[in-house]
Amino acid sequence: MIMIDNLIDPEFQSQVQDKIDNLTKPKGSLGYLETLAGQICMIQHTLSPTLKNPCNILFAADHGILAQGVSVSPKEVTWQQSYHFLEGGAGISFLCHQHGFRLMVVDAGIDHDMDYSSGIIDMKVRKGTRDFSIESAMTPDEFNLCLQRGAECVNRVHADGCNVISFGEMGCGNTSASSIWMSLLAGIPLAQCIGAGAGLDSKGVSHKLEVLTGAVQKFKAGNKAHSIKDILCYFGGLEMAMAVGAMLRAAELRMVILVDGFIMTNCMLAASKLDPNVLQYAVFGHQGDESGHKMLLEYLHAKPLLNLGLRLGEGSGAVCAYPIVESAVRMINEMDSFRKASVTKYF
Amino acid sequence: MIMIDNLIDPEFQSQVQDKIDNLTKPKGSLGYLETLAGQICMIQHTLSPTLKNPCNILFAADHGILAQGVSVSPKEVTWQQSYHFLEGGAGISFLCHQHGFRLMVVDAGIDHDMDYSSGIIDMKVRKGTRDFSIESAMTPDEFNLCLQRGAECVNRVHADGCNVISFGEMGCGNTSASSIWMSLLAGIPLAQCIGAGAGLDSKGVSHKLEVLTGAVQKFKAGNKAHSIKDILCYFGGLEMAMAVGAMLRAAELRMVILVDGFIMTNCMLAASKLDPNVLQYAVFGHQGDESGHKMLLEYLHAKPLLNLGLRLGEGSGAVCAYPIVESAVRMINEMDSFRKASVTKYF
Repeated sequence: MIMIDNLIDPEFQSQVQDKIDNLTKPKGSLGYLETLAGQICMIQHTLSPTLKNPCNILFAADHGILAQGVSVSPKEVTWQQSYHFLEGGAGISFLCHQHGFRLMVVDAGIDHDMDYSSGIIDMKVRKGTRDFSIESAMTPDEFNLCLQRGAECVNRVHADGCNVISFGEMGCGNTSASSIWMSLLAGIPLAQCIGAGAGLDSKGVSHKLEVLTGAVQKFKAGNKAHSIKDILCYFGGLEMAMAVGAMLRAAELRMVILVDGFIMTNCMLAASKLDPNVLQYAVFGHQGDESGHKMLLEYLHAKPLLNLGLRLGEGSGAVCAYPIVESAVRMINEMDSFRKASVTKYF
Repeated sequence: MIMIDNLIDPEFQSQVQDKIDNLTKPKGSLGYLETLAGQICMIQHTLSPTLKNPCNILFAADHGILAQGVSVSPKEVTWQQSYHFLEGGAGISFLCHQHGFRLMVVDAGIDHDMDYSSGIIDMKVRKGTRDFSIESAMTPDEFNLCLQRGAECVNRVHADGCNVISFGEMGCGNTSASSIWMSLLAGIPLAQCIGAGAGLDSKGVSHKLEVLTGAVQKFKAGNKAHSIKDILCYFGGLEMAMAVGAMLRAAELRMVILVDGFIMTNCMLAASKLDPNVLQYAVFGHQGDESGHKMLLEYLHAKPLLNLGLRLGEGSGAVCAYPIVESAVRMINEMDSFRKASVTKYF
């Protein structure tokens, strides 16, 4: 049972706005930093918000659909990279190091016998999803277990004092699952939700569209009346479902949620279909290079902090954007009011 | 005599690209971070660049044109805010604090007797420019002195080990001077270069356009054959001319130059008209909210790192974007190659 507070509170919001408007700058001149500061004040219900122990939880899993040739990445990259993240030389590693993020790598369903003495957290639900072009990627029980384990991961870092969290993923084939979630949850034609993933050429993209279109047709034929959960469960992936559970739990705990690229934005979309209030806690880190991401952000009325053509995943776009979130919080805490600074108020 | 190295060197550039393409990520998947890392490698001529002792030099001065009612900000804001920057409660203060920037506040021409024991650097060329709707804002000697003193400021921080620098400004009325520079240097109609500054309404913007159009007509009538320097000198401001001199010197010293918003982008435009090579050293921090800034960035083929609706000046957009520059440098230094990481190379 999800219980996410609705943050709408016009009276408190006007106190927040007053504080922001009396800082020593022309009104509105710090643009989106002001919006962001306001949002974080609402999440924490304070005029002096703080960001503590930031954490990036990276969920990794494999996808049965990879057997249909929808990705350029060979499957072993999932487990190889999962070790590599914690060794310190991956994309997400330097970003976490730079911004003081704890990096938690979670095996949500890697199709490989992992060595957990590496520091990877064992939350494996099964060794990869089933191929959704043939059958449902997960059973309902597996899906619910993913939600629950995602929440459990968040509980752990929250207990350690974390109040700002990002989520990342590693899972060769997961742009395929994401594109279908987007198409079915947002009602956007599949062709507009599909992109090159880690590097498909145009022939590869056509093949991907053909495979996914077939899978969706088969699903619809077999599931005339389907719920949101039916969609999430049928197409997977395990790491994505775990991220959905994690996002819902993070919002319940009133944490600031940094949303990464295409795949994590789809997880936020999915979470919002289960409880729309989750969006009030979301800060969108960046607009990725994957086709469809821009459209999806527009559908969610989301303004991403960065637009740097990133398409790495792993949480990279969310963590890369973190200093801007920190700037917003510093703005409201460290800037003087006009009165305090003895500066003539200008507009 | 300006001597800025031309960085074009295809052979070294291909070594840089090879290093970036062999980092453990799909090729190109770190988007603009990769471009930026490449640029910094070229500036420093190394495959392992470093960023040292970042500094924001904030030039402050007054503008005679303020007498014509082109700004909502009263003139005393220039000197009041100049003190305030160093006291720590201004917009630029928290950003410099957050990102470890030294903040140097320079009196380029504030129309007030300043107390330099505050830490403000005395480079005052005169107490504010003349009103360019009546006469030239500066004499050629004053303009040249600005260029020279801007360079001197850069020499000082470079001597202290700084190799990455941003410039900011404080000067009520300086969007007026900037709009004219942009129009005359880039050949864009004045109406498209003018915006609300710190907060003019539409009537105020119309008045500003009228005043500036008259000033430009008068200048053109009196200066049939005019050079770039004639334009810069006639319309000012002192802080802007000083920033131009500073940017040219920073490029000569092969420093990475972070460019702030509308006014500093116009200073970079002016610097590029004196030596086009300066643009190879420029990293554009953000696209501001001032009308015309987007058009100007397009004219310069510049891709800004942020687009957060900032319009504060002071160097805020440049300093706010600094962590992205740092991410680019960390990427190339801290990420493993595929070979080192034992990860199968994917595209």
